[in-house]
Amino acid sequence: MAEKKFLPSWNEEPLRKGSYRSIFKLGRPDEFKHPRGELIEIVKHEFGMSDVDFQKRQFEGHETVTLDRKPGLSDGQIAKFKEIVGPENVSLEDYDRVKFSSGQTLREVVDLRHNRIADVADLVVKPRNKHDVQNIVRYACEQKIPVSVYGGGSSVVLGIAPRHGGVVLVMNAHMNRVLSINELNQTAIVQPGMMGPDYEEALNQAPERFNTRHRYTGGHFPQSFEISSVGGWVVTLGSGQASTYYGDAYNLVIGQEYVTPAGSFKTREYPASATGPKINDIMKGSEGAFGILVEQTMKIYRFQPENRQYFSFMFPSWDAAVDASREIMQGEFGMPAVYRISDAEETDHGLKLFGAGGKRWFESLMAMAGKKPGERCIAMGTAEGEKGYTRHVKAQIKKISKKYGATYLSGFPARKWEKTRYKEPLMREDWMDYGIIVDTLETSVTWDNLHRVHQEVRAFIKGRPRTVCMTHASHFYPNGTNLYFIFMLKPDSWEEFSKFHAGIISAIVQAGGSISHHHGVGRLLAPWLENYLGPEQMAVLRVLKNHFDPQNLMNPGGLLALEPPAAER
Amino acid sequence: MAEKKFLPSWNEEPLRKGSYRSIFKLGRPDEFKHPRGELIEIVKHEFGMSDVDFQKRQFEGHETVTLDRKPGLSDGQIAKFKEIVGPENVSLEDYDRVKFSSGQTLREVVDLRHNRIADVADLVVKPRNKHDVQNIVRYACEQKIPVSVYGGGSSVVLGIAPRHGGVVLVMNAHMNRVLSINELNQTAIVQPGMMGPDYEEALNQAPERFNTRHRYTGGHFPQSFEISSVGGWVVTLGSGQASTYYGDAYNLVIGQEYVTPAGSFKTREYPASATGPKINDIMKGSEGAFGILVEQTMKIYRFQPENRQYFSFMFPSWDAAVDASREIMQGEFGMPAVYRISDAEETDHGLKLFGAGGKRWFESLMAMAGKKPGERCIAMGTAEGEKGYTRHVKAQIKKISKKYGATYLSGFPARKWEKTRYKEPLMREDWMDYGIIVDTLETSVTWDNLHRVHQEVRAFIKGRPRTVCMTHASHFYPNGTNLYFIFMLKPDSWEEFSKFHAGIISAIVQAGGSISHHHGVGRLLAPWLENYLGPEQMAVLRVLKNHFDPQNLMNPGGLLALEPPAAER
Repeated sequence: MAEKKFLPSWNEEPLRKGSYRSIFKLGRPDEFKHPRGELIEIVKHEFGMSDVDFQKRQFEGHETVTLDRKPGLSDGQIAKFKEIVGPENVSLEDYDRVKFSSGQTLREVVDLRHNRIADVADLVVKPRNKHDVQNIVRYACEQKIPVSVYGGGSSVVLGIAPRHGGVVLVMNAHMNRVLSINELNQTAIVQPGMMGPDYEEALNQAPERFNTRHRYTGGHFPQSFEISSVGGWVVTLGSGQASTYYGDAYNLVIGQEYVTPAGSFKTREYPASATGPKINDIMKGSEGAFGILVEQTMKIYRFQPENRQYFSFMFPSWDAAVDASREIMQGEFGMPAVYRISDAEETDHGLKLFGAGGKRWFESLMAMAGKKPGERCIAMGTAEGEKGYTRHVKAQIKKISKKYGATYLSGFPARKWEKTRYKEPLMREDWMDYGIIVDTLETSVTWDNLHRVHQEVRAFIKGRPRTVCMTHASHFYPNGTNLYFIFMLKPDSWEEFSKFHAGIISAIVQAGGSISHHHGVGRLLAPWLENYLGPEQMAVLRVLKNHFDPQNLMNPGGLLALEPPAAER
Repeated sequence: MAEKKFLPSWNEEPLRKGSYRSIFKLGRPDEFKHPRGELIEIVKHEFGMSDVDFQKRQFEGHETVTLDRKPGLSDGQIAKFKEIVGPENVSLEDYDRVKFSSGQTLREVVDLRHNRIADVADLVVKPRNKHDVQNIVRYACEQKIPVSVYGGGSSVVLGIAPRHGGVVLVMNAHMNRVLSINELNQTAIVQPGMMGPDYEEALNQAPERFNTRHRYTGGHFPQSFEISSVGGWVVTLGSGQASTYYGDAYNLVIGQEYVTPAGSFKTREYPASATGPKINDIMKGSEGAFGILVEQTMKIYRFQPENRQYFSFMFPSWDAAVDASREIMQGEFGMPAVYRISDAEETDHGLKLFGAGGKRWFESLMAMAGKKPGERCIAMGTAEGEKGYTRHVKAQIKKISKKYGATYLSGFPARKWEKTRYKEPLMREDWMDYGIIVDTLETSVTWDNLHRVHQEVRAFIKGRPRTVCMTHASHFYPNGTNLYFIFMLKPDSWEEFSKFHAGIISAIVQAGGSISHHHGVGRLLAPWLENYLGPEQMAVLRVLKNHFDPQNLMNPGGLLALEPPAAER
């Protein structure tokens, strides 16, 4: 019998109401996902830790949120906001101010664990409808009050952070419904504060709720699905795990209604037109800096889970996985929905996470197939759509993968991944309770530059001793894909980590990756934007900013590098 | 034996060098496509014409182009342009000035037939490369000289028309090559002056010319294919006949390099990224008003004509054709490449044009199938891509079409259409030689508004006595399609036609169609743009214009309604 291994004591205390932890904890209050023993062994080994390091949890953030800053608005101003949205929709509470000023950026989580608050709004306002938003924006402009927006609070790039205070609009309080489904056009008009699961459920339940003939899906399942809003997907140019088939948020939004200091407008909803540069495009990715998204028309698709095909493969190497993936994406037989390939380090860790790696039955199978630890790479995915289509897509993927030496692993790993996909991030809290950080950065690559970005960024990350670096590609196009780097380490200090983190971003950009594939820019990545775009293109964004928001009140404070460089200010 | 019918004498004279006709005539100089007898009978019947009306051709434009306007540039300015591009690439000739100031807008053709010239550049300049363009733009800004762009000269919306004179840049003289093909990324870097057939040939011949493994296609085949340039496709948001599969020019362009008065820049070529609003998008559809497109990266696709599937159907009615098409586009089994449905009037005329309609063998087949003239509607198309995919797409289209009562007509009509598709417009000259006008307007529609737009616009056009109105939809999306109206009439006068034409545009917009699906806006449709977009969105376009081109020198003169309304000027 195996020796009974030491297991750390994980936090399973009920979340304290009003605590810092209740703001940053992922998942439902009583929902936990603890690391398996295999993972802990890896971590100990990689980080040179021992059981002693897992004796005491630290900086858990159970304290009650308190703020040392009084709201910077006058009584008259506060009264006016109460008049606009009703007093029950305005909060001055410390807890609310902090909660709705926070995203999921690692820096924010670390701050909250230490009971530190960097950026906080003066006032929390919950608009009931788009007319409220119009009145809020009008009054804010008149009084020069900054306006930030809280959708689902899932930003990992300091997208909310109300650096200059002001009001924060909580969009998911009331503006959180599907207003209508147009079954002929296959579009849905949605309020931007609707959360991912609610949106998907409303579409799945369309016959019962909207009297439609068919069930629908939004086709958008980002890792943050459970804590992000439909509006947030669009304003940050998010991407879902099934984007290879359904497209990114960029492709899914067919029309937008905006309230800006320069006026309110609704773009037209044609699937295509030739009437000059499209305002719908110009607003996509503006991250709240041009104004407030108040309604959006989204493409929807038939919900046909009965046709979904699952597949998983083990490739002998990363090169083989990449080559096969490119051939699949350029094969013109249709596209898979979910499609993911993991590099060797992620594959090995992933196999242990799911309880297969290292197990004798599994390793002997793999050995027979010539798939070695440290080299082999897993691929998995689904095909969605009409029945014959999904079968054909899967068959073609199988054919191409085998050509590149892959072993078919059945659909099981993909099914398992699908079931648990939103729960993996919950382990973050456990690790951090013991001072271990898991963070991610991601980038777009063209096929011809994929290996360079992977190698150079990985070399930088692995250049730090005792650092795990797992990489996957998970959003595919005929012309390229993304690379998603997950790094795990026990930093010496926040300063050490912060410098390391900046180094990764620089390594990505240096190697020719984009600053972001689907996280957006926010304030975290903004310092890299001007060099990346170049002054001519940066100037275009600033001209738009100045047009929509000449007083710089819409989500101000460094977002998207829209404020002129310090020297010019 | 059938009575020998009178046939008009069609112009088959060799084109006179330097003549007006040589500017507007479609097709090669010695290439003609004359209307069949059946069509002439229709025209006579519809327009109340007799053989007498076809005795004498008029306003044929055989005269030699002469201009009454001296170039408005100084000798010093002309010398400077010669210095920039070399004297051999500058022309002051009347003929060149008129030719490269003209598009294919009906108004322009009518003017040229009457030896009238509305808008003309002072100087024709043929840039050799992007550095020439930079020098030209820099000098033009310094001297306040307007700059227009001539790609292939196919605009039908007064997109070239140098209303304020200045220089016109002829892009297809030298900047007309594929610079490179990136086979890994499946992209090609192309100079914007490359003409459609040259571009497609270069891609088809990629193994021989660029040493690639595969042959490629650009996937873009607009009706104007033979007379339009790759750059023109992008700056006007054009759409090809296979767009339902390959996408519009909007979807095909992945990166652009621009020279503007506000600087030169090249957008990055990631298939997706989340780094703020995309400058690549902002430049799409700017119609030369923001600056000069000098290089573009286009998505390319595997050229696999051996997999192409053809299909054609006869539906009992327009409603059935539309319903089937919507189900096809929303079916999620893949998309056809070419897909077209014609309304009853177009179907009847088309059948006669192709020699089937009215023939006993055909009509008895149709009668047996219950497909009546005046009601039946033809659909045709192709599927492209991988072999199994194209077969599956065709099979599904067949299944759905039959469900809606369609009779399968084999692939023959689609093959025939494909062969002759670029030649049909050549008949325009023949008709106009006898005073008959064929013109087109087109619009985008969502599925839920398709019938309203079709009915209201058709009612307006047919409200004019003796007017043919043929309509088809030819660019499909899950969320809608386009409507393309072809109208044919013998106008009483240009003024009468002009008013009628404006009435059609107003009817389109009134019914809820877009101003344009793929022709662009130019100067012809610009008067409708501000109301259509609304002042807030129009203001965004003007802000961009003012940023890129504060002196209003880039393709000025009313294009895209970018100049403020007359009242404000």
